[in-house]
Amino acid sequence: MTLTYHTPLSPDQQRAFGLPETWPLALADRVRFSELDPLNHVNNVAYLVWFEGARVTYFKHVGLSTYKNGEAEPRIVIRRGEIDWLQEMRADEDYVVGTRTVDYRTTSFTLRQEIWSGGTVRATFTCVIVLLMPDGSARMPIPEYVRERFHAVDGVERRVDAP
Amino acid sequence: MTLTYHTPLSPDQQRAFGLPETWPLALADRVRFSELDPLNHVNNVAYLVWFEGARVTYFKHVGLSTYKNGEAEPRIVIRRGEIDWLQEMRADEDYVVGTRTVDYRTTSFTLRQEIWSGGTVRATFTCVIVLLMPDGSARMPIPEYVRERFHAVDGVERRVDAP
Amino acid sequence: MTLTYHTPLSPDQQRAFGLPETWPLALADRVRFSELDPLNHVNNVAYLVWFEGARVTYFKHVGLSTYKNGEAEPRIVIRRGEIDWLQEMRADEDYVVGTRTVDYRTTSFTLRQEIWSGGTVRATFTCVIVLLMPDGSARMPIPEYVRERFHAVDGVERRVDAP
Amino acid sequence: MTLTYHTPLSPDQQRAFGLPETWPLALADRVRFSELDPLNHVNNVAYLVWFEGARVTYFKHVGLSTYKNGEAEPRIVIRRGEIDWLQEMRADEDYVVGTRTVDYRTTSFTLRQEIWSGGTVRATFTCVIVLLMPDGSARMPIPEYVRERFHAVDGVERRVDAP
Repeated sequence: MTLTYHTPLSPDQQRAFGLPETWPLALADRVRFSELDPLNHVNNVAYLVWFEGARVTYFKHVGLSTYKNGEAEPRIVIRRGEIDWLQEMRADEDYVVGTRTVDYRTTSFTLRQEIWSGGTVRATFTCVIVLLMPDGSARMPIPEYVRERFHAVDGVERRVDAP
Repeated sequence: MTLTYHTPLSPDQQRAFGLPETWPLALADRVRFSELDPLNHVNNVAYLVWFEGARVTYFKHVGLSTYKNGEAEPRIVIRRGEIDWLQEMRADEDYVVGTRTVDYRTTSFTLRQEIWSGGTVRATFTCVIVLLMPDGSARMPIPEYVRERFHAVDGVERRVDAP
Repeated sequence: MTLTYHTPLSPDQQRAFGLPETWPLALADRVRFSELDPLNHVNNVAYLVWFEGARVTYFKHVGLSTYKNGEAEPRIVIRRGEIDWLQEMRADEDYVVGTRTVDYRTTSFTLRQEIWSGGTVRATFTCVIVLLMPDGSARMPIPEYVRERFHAVDGVERRVDAP
Repeated sequence: MTLTYHTPLSPDQQRAFGLPETWPLALADRVRFSELDPLNHVNNVAYLVWFEGARVTYFKHVGLSTYKNGEAEPRIVIRRGEIDWLQEMRADEDYVVGTRTVDYRTTSFTLRQEIWSGGTVRATFTCVIVLLMPDGSARMPIPEYVRERFHAVDGVERRVDAP
C-alpha cells in the first residue's frame, strides 16, 4: 500500500490504513530516528509532538488561526489533557493521527486524538482547548462558523442547551 | 536567592523557592531557548520533557533502575497520564519539578508531579507507571524495598488491604 | 505537484521538485510546527535533525547498519561537520534532503547533504563518518560492497591509490 | 566539588572544573535523559542545542539582543558553522560550554564554542554570526560598544585595519 503523508487522508485511505472509524482529519507520518529512546522505542514525549502538529493543522482547517506572525487571531491554549500510551512504536513505523472535536462550550472545546499504526491504536489524547482574545486579556467565544463545522464535519451532536 | 540546579533540594531550599509543601524529590532547572515556541512561551511539550527527566531521577533514587545498558532491570513503562497546563512560562525562568508516589498496587504505582516557578504552580502531571520484567514478557511486582520507601519517604498511607 | 514523502525519490521526481542535479538518495518531508522558533522560522538545529534522519536511511540503504538493537554491526560515528544555513525556512514548507558519499578512505568517508525547497538550496552539510568495530574498540575498514556502492551508485571517482 | 549551573562561572570555578583556559562566558549544565540516543550516548544534535543556548546567553550579555518579542533589535543570524564531535558523552554527565568571539568584520563575527566535561573537550563549534536590521532588510554593522567588548572581554586582538 502506498501511504500519503502530510496530506489529509480520505475516508477510503483511512480504511485502507486500518482505521476502524474515519476521522474528519487524519494525517500520516513516519517515526524518525531522533524520536527513539535508549530502548529503541519511540520516546513517550514524541507522541505529544505528533498530537501537537495534528492540532495545529486541525486549527488551520477549522479556520481558527493561520499561525502567521502579526495577525490578530485568537490565542489557542491547551488547558488540560489525558494521554494513554497503549502500545509501543519502533523505528520507521508509519502512523496516522486522527483529530476531531467531540464537545464544546462557549469559549472552549474538547478534542479527541488517536494514533494508529499497523491496525492497532498506539496512543490516545483527549484535551481541552480554550480560546483567548488575541492579546490574551480574556476568553473569546468560539466563532459561529467554527461551531457549525463542529456539527457538520466533526459530528458533534446538537443540544437544546448548546451555547 | 541562589538556586541549586540538578541536585535534590532540601526541604528548606524548597520552602525558600516558594513551594507551599515539600516533596521527597524536588529538582530545579531553567527554561532553555530551544523550549520556546513562536509566541515566545515555553512550548506545551517541553513540560513533558521536564517531567520525564525528573521521573528518571526519581526511579534511580528509589532504586528501580540504574538506566545502564545491558543491566537486567525492570522495564518501567508509563501507561497513562493527566496533565494540566496552568500558567505559561517564559524565557530564562527558573522552575522546580516535584515528584512523589501517591498510591500503588501490586505491579503499578501512581506518580504526582508538579512544576513550580515564582511561587505559582505552572503545570501538574499525574501518571500511572507499570513495571515489566526485564524482557518485557510480563508484569513485575514492585520490590518490597521500593514499597517501603513509598511509605517512609513519599508518605503513601499504609492500608490494611495494601498489596 | 504531488510530493512523495519518506520514500526515496526517483531522478524524475527529484527534477520535478526543482533539484538541479539528482542524488542517489533524496527524501522529502515537511516542516513541523515543533521546529519553529520564536521568530516563526525553522530553528537552526532542526536542519541537523533532518540531516541525521537522512543519514540513518542512507546507512541502511548502503548496508552499513540495520539499526536494530543487539545486532553486531559497525558503530557509525560522526566525527566532524560543516553546515551552511543559506536561506530560512517557514511553517509547512516541503523540502528534500539529498545525501551522497563524495570521498572515502580506509575506515572513514565524507558525506555531502543538501536541503532544497522551492527551487533553492536552504542548507548544506558536509561531514566525516568513521566506522568502529561493534564494541567500539577500534576502527573498522569500510566493507568492500559498500565501497563498490560508493563508486557505482554515488559516483565517487575511482583512484589509482584508492584504499 | 559543587558545580554552579546556568550561571556564568568565574575563572576560578572554570579552573576547578578542569578547563585549561578560561572563557569570558562559561555555563554549566547536565546531560538530560531526553538527549540520549538508542546507544545511550548523547545524541549528536543535542550538542547543537547546548551551543545554541550558550550563544543566546552570550548575545544577551554582549548587549546585542534582549530576545523579547516586539523589540526593534538586530536580527542575529548564524550563517555557517564547523563542529567537531570529539568524545562521546553519557547520562548525567556535567559539562561546561565556553563561548567567546575570536574575530569580527563590519557586520559579522566569528564565535568559538567548546564543551568540556571531566577534564576533556567533548565537542567544539566555530560559527559565523551575521547581524541584520530588525526588519531583516539589510546587514547591520556591529555596534561600537559590542566591538569594544570583543576586545576588552573576549580578547580579540586590535588590528590596524580593523573595521
